[in-house]
Amino acid sequence: MQQQISVITLGIADLAASKHFYGDGFGWAPVFENQEIVFYQMNGLVLGTWLKAKLEEDSRRSGLGEGAFALAHNVASPEEVDALIARLVGHGGKALRPADAPPHGGYRGYVADPDGHAWEIAFNPAWTIDAAGHVTFGL
Amino acid sequence: MQQQISVITLGIADLAASKHFYGDGFGWAPVFENQEIVFYQMNGLVLGTWLKAKLEEDSRRSGLGEGAFALAHNVASPEEVDALIARLVGHGGKALRPADAPPHGGYRGYVADPDGHAWEIAFNPAWTIDAAGHVTFGL
Repeated sequence: MQQQISVITLGIADLAASKHFYGDGFGWAPVFENQEIVFYQMNGLVLGTWLKAKLEEDSRRSGLGEGAFALAHNVASPEEVDALIARLVGHGGKALRPADAPPHGGYRGYVADPDGHAWEIAFNPAWTIDAAGHVTFGL
Repeated sequence: MQQQISVITLGIADLAASKHFYGDGFGWAPVFENQEIVFYQMNGLVLGTWLKAKLEEDSRRSGLGEGAFALAHNVASPEEVDALIARLVGHGGKALRPADAPPHGGYRGYVADPDGHAWEIAFNPAWTIDAAGHVTFGL
């Protein structure tokens, strides 16, 4: 299994305050943004800052406190999404959302690790992953 | 500023349960482990799973709930650590720990983003970072 994290998604309350911190504080340039999410292309993975209510809805969690987030691991097919989610649940993971198709395409579900960290397991044909596991944002 | 995340550190309760999930579930091999932390070399960054009490102590936070974690961004000198922490605090960040030298060497401090996500800003001469920002674990 490729040792790869495709996305870190941070749940945020205020898009402008978050952009001030990441865009002006760190000096990072977005690769994509709309009214609910900003993506930054990082070093072989993508950082997303997403309105917390949307992240909660997507990951089928609620009442996430300060510091809410989810990690993602991308695989090469929808079948691999289902297989990996089942495998993780068989190794102490807790199913959060059975995989289905998100509005932006592809296929994904969510599992929490034994300590409650959410992992999205995703197939996203628009995002490229090289042999070293470096992930590049795409639409 | 390099768009780079060097480490994702997840706070965990039980090292064996976490290793079962990441090592056997995902099938990932550690690059380093001891009695309190396991590091996995990922795609241009490092994943750490660290006993939550240790992470809380290091980041000067307490009472972190389920899903506790911290991100890290590495820079090239101790001076850059201090400068970036000051800059982030000036852009909506909240200082958590002024920078000082950790037991493993280097220099680091912690800042939370406007939504409470902790960032360690670190100088760690043992870890290499290439021009594309890909970070490699080192001792």
